[in-house]
Amino acid sequence: MKSELTAFFDRVLPAVDRTLEQLLPLESTAPSQIHQAMRYSIFAGGKRLRPALCIAGYELYHSDPAPVLPVASAFEMIHTYSLIHDDLPAMDDDDFRRGIPSSHKKFGEAIAILAGDALLTLAFDTMSRCNSFAPDRLLQATAKLARASGTLSGMIAGQVFDLEAERRPIKDSNVEQIHRSKTGALITAAVTVGAYLGGASESQLAAVQTFGERIGLAFQVVDDILDETASIQTLGKTGGKDRNQQKATYPALYGLERSRTIVAELSDQARAVIRPLGERARILTSMADYLESRSH
Amino acid sequence: MKSELTAFFDRVLPAVDRTLEQLLPLESTAPSQIHQAMRYSIFAGGKRLRPALCIAGYELYHSDPAPVLPVASAFEMIHTYSLIHDDLPAMDDDDFRRGIPSSHKKFGEAIAILAGDALLTLAFDTMSRCNSFAPDRLLQATAKLARASGTLSGMIAGQVFDLEAERRPIKDSNVEQIHRSKTGALITAAVTVGAYLGGASESQLAAVQTFGERIGLAFQVVDDILDETASIQTLGKTGGKDRNQQKATYPALYGLERSRTIVAELSDQARAVIRPLGERARILTSMADYLESRSH
Repeated sequence: MKSELTAFFDRVLPAVDRTLEQLLPLESTAPSQIHQAMRYSIFAGGKRLRPALCIAGYELYHSDPAPVLPVASAFEMIHTYSLIHDDLPAMDDDDFRRGIPSSHKKFGEAIAILAGDALLTLAFDTMSRCNSFAPDRLLQATAKLARASGTLSGMIAGQVFDLEAERRPIKDSNVEQIHRSKTGALITAAVTVGAYLGGASESQLAAVQTFGERIGLAFQVVDDILDETASIQTLGKTGGKDRNQQKATYPALYGLERSRTIVAELSDQARAVIRPLGERARILTSMADYLESRSH
Repeated sequence: MKSELTAFFDRVLPAVDRTLEQLLPLESTAPSQIHQAMRYSIFAGGKRLRPALCIAGYELYHSDPAPVLPVASAFEMIHTYSLIHDDLPAMDDDDFRRGIPSSHKKFGEAIAILAGDALLTLAFDTMSRCNSFAPDRLLQATAKLARASGTLSGMIAGQVFDLEAERRPIKDSNVEQIHRSKTGALITAAVTVGAYLGGASESQLAAVQTFGERIGLAFQVVDDILDETASIQTLGKTGGKDRNQQKATYPALYGLERSRTIVAELSDQARAVIRPLGERARILTSMADYLESRSH
């Protein structure tokens, strides 16, 4: 029998893809190169974790995810822009992403830079045009998205910490700081914004935010573990790259076994903090289970 | 005696700089490299044309520009991010900007890419946190800013058209299309958003928008002319570069004299369309005069 989580993904991920399909300009729209590049990366087989979390946060309070789909899609646009820029030769210099050539290998560096810029811009365009929510709430949600993407404990801060760490000995506090900001902030914002727009109370929102922080960190530790253990076939990108680049990772610092224990602890904390939300938090709990299971 | 336009600039440009000073994280804030890079480019002596236009649009209806200053600053952030990315080796490959090393020469390519991303993100962060205006109006203004920055007749569209044009013979329709989107769209949006937030009627807004389109195009033609005629001393960047890169420019297509005539015609049209606004449009009219005078 299909698990409830699988049923959730089967229901919401096609809806996310349809929304992205509508929000991204057609490939034939001039200037076509940029729209081809935007679609190439958006529809390259991403797992849609951030949109799924945003929708799961919203569905704590509503059964129909339709109103929050543009917001969920904006999170995927921000995530995808960051991958395109992160893969550039001046950054991580990755030729592959999700098993296919990265944007700059396919379209050249100039278009890849602009495609990232364009997805970042379209994310905020989408937020400002979303008419499902009261304008003041939409502005609050936009502010959270922007802050999670920015230089103050947000995604860009994480990327800069990451660049700085390549030139320094790895210290544990650094690794957690990098992971919290580089991937944790956007993951946390996705589920928090979903719950916020769904109508969470302040205490519920605080619980959802802590849940997001814990699974966000767990997710990145799992990613580090998979980079150590998986081959390019299962990973879709060059494995072992972090180690070669002397990246600050949990396995490099603690070894694989301790890293897996940390994932389990973080997942436990995530599940515990949303327990007061009761039955409706089942999907979020299952997502924590799922993320944890990827570490083995 | 000081001209009214000089007095306007002397009054509003320091206010724009103070606002940017408050909105940008301090250089000492971690991760400091990115904040240094953001400030380096923002405070590199830009003319603040877009903020000035935004304020002038707003001051058609109000004498105190304070409420619109964050919005005006967001336009400068978007403009500055576009310059940083445009100067990158994969794009125009410019080592100098405003007489000093461009961002990637000073901070390296990775930080330059991220500093551009960060300013783009901060622009929307700023819009979403600006509490001077009703939320629905702020969302409308944000949508206009995003559209003017994007791939549908916006700034990124212009940059892609520009890249494409380097590989093709120059056709006049292309040049106007490139200029309208690459610089015209953001200039037009700056003055239009200012007037919109000031409370312009629909017909007034249409007039201001046409004014913006005409001076936006005139501005870029003047820029082309100056690139042909000025040296690095007066320009602060490498002159004659457009010609060497076979860029699509008005002088390349029509020659200098005809290009100057086009600037004069566009400026006339700009002044004419806002004449019905009467006395309060004096600053906008003077700005058209000023832009025109730079072509000689």
